[in-house]
Amino acid sequence: MLPVDEQLKVITSGTMQIVPLEELKKKLEKGTPLNIKLGVDPTSPDLHLGHAVPLRKMRQFQDLGHNVTLIIGNGTALIGDPSGRDSTRPPLTEEQVEANAKTYVEQAMKVLDPEKTQIVHNGDWLKGLNLAEMLKLMSQFNVARILEREDFHNRYTEGKSIALHEFIYPVLQAYDSVVVKADLEMGGNDQIFNLLAGRDLMRAMGMEPQVALTMPLLVGTDGHKKMSKSYGNYVGLTDEPADMYGKVMSITDELVPLYWRLCSTADMDKLDAIDAAFADGSADPYALKRELAANIVDLYHGEGAGAAASAAFDAQFKRAEAPAEMPEFPVSVAEVNDEGKVYLGKLLVEVGIAKSAGEARRLVDGGGVKINGEPVAPKCYNVDPALLSAGTTVQSGKKRWARLV
Amino acid sequence: MLPVDEQLKVITSGTMQIVPLEELKKKLEKGTPLNIKLGVDPTSPDLHLGHAVPLRKMRQFQDLGHNVTLIIGNGTALIGDPSGRDSTRPPLTEEQVEANAKTYVEQAMKVLDPEKTQIVHNGDWLKGLNLAEMLKLMSQFNVARILEREDFHNRYTEGKSIALHEFIYPVLQAYDSVVVKADLEMGGNDQIFNLLAGRDLMRAMGMEPQVALTMPLLVGTDGHKKMSKSYGNYVGLTDEPADMYGKVMSITDELVPLYWRLCSTADMDKLDAIDAAFADGSADPYALKRELAANIVDLYHGEGAGAAASAAFDAQFKRAEAPAEMPEFPVSVAEVNDEGKVYLGKLLVEVGIAKSAGEARRLVDGGGVKINGEPVAPKCYNVDPALLSAGTTVQSGKKRWARLV
Repeated sequence: MLPVDEQLKVITSGTMQIVPLEELKKKLEKGTPLNIKLGVDPTSPDLHLGHAVPLRKMRQFQDLGHNVTLIIGNGTALIGDPSGRDSTRPPLTEEQVEANAKTYVEQAMKVLDPEKTQIVHNGDWLKGLNLAEMLKLMSQFNVARILEREDFHNRYTEGKSIALHEFIYPVLQAYDSVVVKADLEMGGNDQIFNLLAGRDLMRAMGMEPQVALTMPLLVGTDGHKKMSKSYGNYVGLTDEPADMYGKVMSITDELVPLYWRLCSTADMDKLDAIDAAFADGSADPYALKRELAANIVDLYHGEGAGAAASAAFDAQFKRAEAPAEMPEFPVSVAEVNDEGKVYLGKLLVEVGIAKSAGEARRLVDGGGVKINGEPVAPKCYNVDPALLSAGTTVQSGKKRWARLV
Repeated sequence: MLPVDEQLKVITSGTMQIVPLEELKKKLEKGTPLNIKLGVDPTSPDLHLGHAVPLRKMRQFQDLGHNVTLIIGNGTALIGDPSGRDSTRPPLTEEQVEANAKTYVEQAMKVLDPEKTQIVHNGDWLKGLNLAEMLKLMSQFNVARILEREDFHNRYTEGKSIALHEFIYPVLQAYDSVVVKADLEMGGNDQIFNLLAGRDLMRAMGMEPQVALTMPLLVGTDGHKKMSKSYGNYVGLTDEPADMYGKVMSITDELVPLYWRLCSTADMDKLDAIDAAFADGSADPYALKRELAANIVDLYHGEGAGAAASAAFDAQFKRAEAPAEMPEFPVSVAEVNDEGKVYLGKLLVEVGIAKSAGEARRLVDGGGVKINGEPVAPKCYNVDPALLSAGTTVQSGKKRWARLV
């Protein structure tokens, strides 16, 4: 394992809080792999870059040689984490949770190293808890302390309902830490109460308490609100490469260093260099944003996908020269012939760009015909039908346009 | 069944609150027996007249033809009812609860009609509750509402700890009402929150909600604090007849009508007559107190025990003529002879009342010798050793005394 100082440089990168840092140092100094815990309630099947922030941190722990346990909260999902909420979550069915969990793991494994990840389901130990065991756990918790939590406190003082079962969430999450014997639990910065609850419960049960590590909630592409599907400011982990690339390109320049640190696979030296360049004004935000977008697309779609998305991004900009309004035709006008191709001599007539097949062929040979902004090579009168789908533009020069719909 | 009005006269007698009375009337008007619920947590093996107040009300329901279910809280005892408490109860072991439950039922059956009482244990349905079921129940409860309870509110605002498991108590008690399909639940006046919680949960689960009936907490023999073993102002249901009689005799005159109403077996006409006599000043508090004491002793020790206790009470007062200090002798001075008797000719000499056996016999024949205030008949020189135990006084006339110790 790396020396403790070097490990800490990676571990602390981008974090909000580590409570207490001294204990983490002591744990690392033992020189044996730590148990790192992340619990997730698969309440939504679609993950975004915000969800991936703690997963990235987990991956860093894996790369440092530590053990990583991902707890699928199929037990806690019966409640739904009230952290940061201003109202009670609707409960999920068992089936929803299972389906979401499956999708979650698939997505999470794009970030984590599957070989080095232990996946467990807290339903395995939570669902079998009986009344006496539940009560014993609850008896370790103090009502006033739970009510001090910012979210509960706000709801209580504003007269908004808190259902009693929501108070049980931190108890169960804490018990998970006892079961997996966590050395460190990580979460978003709205999780600090739950993480410290785990610390308290482990201590009460005579165990070495876990360290709490929180990551910031990622700001969405709008630069204001936290990334969330409901705000429409998110980059989904399963977004198509072009979408993903384009969405990352839409973030404001100030967000570039933060996204590099929290979302990319860059190493510490690279991240520090980017920070320094932004600090002294020497950074090229546009270039760094394009590099960032490619890095993120590579991460989620495989090496090389970033470069392809970058090229597609450029092509998209060329298409952007097309007029906003143009004649539209159903895709069916692009008839596929016996050779499995679409004959442009016919198509260009159908969409009114040429008056005859002969004119159409001459336009192609003149190099002025483009499909989706990409020029058709001279003499190539037969094109692949895959190029001609709904939304495809067909043009001759800058004036004659048609769109398939 | 009696007409609803007549039933209500009995049912409302001595109650604190019936919420809502109108619903109780409607339930009674159906003309079928109601399910009356009383839940008890056998936390203490010794019952007193205060515990018996709701049991007496249950008995009245039985006598009116209703079904009575006594719920032994071996499940809820895992928590311990926080009602009216200013700190967390220590939990009981399974064994303590079982032992207490057995003793409780034995004592309760002196008040209830055993033939007409259904006894169930809520551990039967509570201990098997799993997490999902618990959470579903808890989700029906509102944290703010529970915190409004006077006891919790006081502890919360005074900074005294409330353990989270204490919040679960009303949830479980409410669930008991769902399970036994209670039409009415009764309890002490510190129970109103728990009883209404049952009402709410039944309604939330689509059932006809129970009516809540509370009885006052009985004031102890001191006339100030509620009856409680820890205040030493209680009359235990298993107290010996003489003790029980004497303790009831020690209550203040003002308490007499209340004790008659809450603790005796008197019918409504008698109770109303006593109230009226106290109201117009025609009552003889001493005579009514003696009659009350006999009634209560009869109730707990069987018909006729009251009269015997009354006689013993008088005898005790005769003993009370004895001087506060007198020579004391070990019980062993009362030697048992071959006939299994104690010869007074010897005993009176031993304790210094007579100088010789002859004088002793003459004192007996003169009728001046008394044992515990009861005269020894002339010529009866040999007495049963059972009469001569520790505390027994032996006297000749009013001047010569001895006590065995």
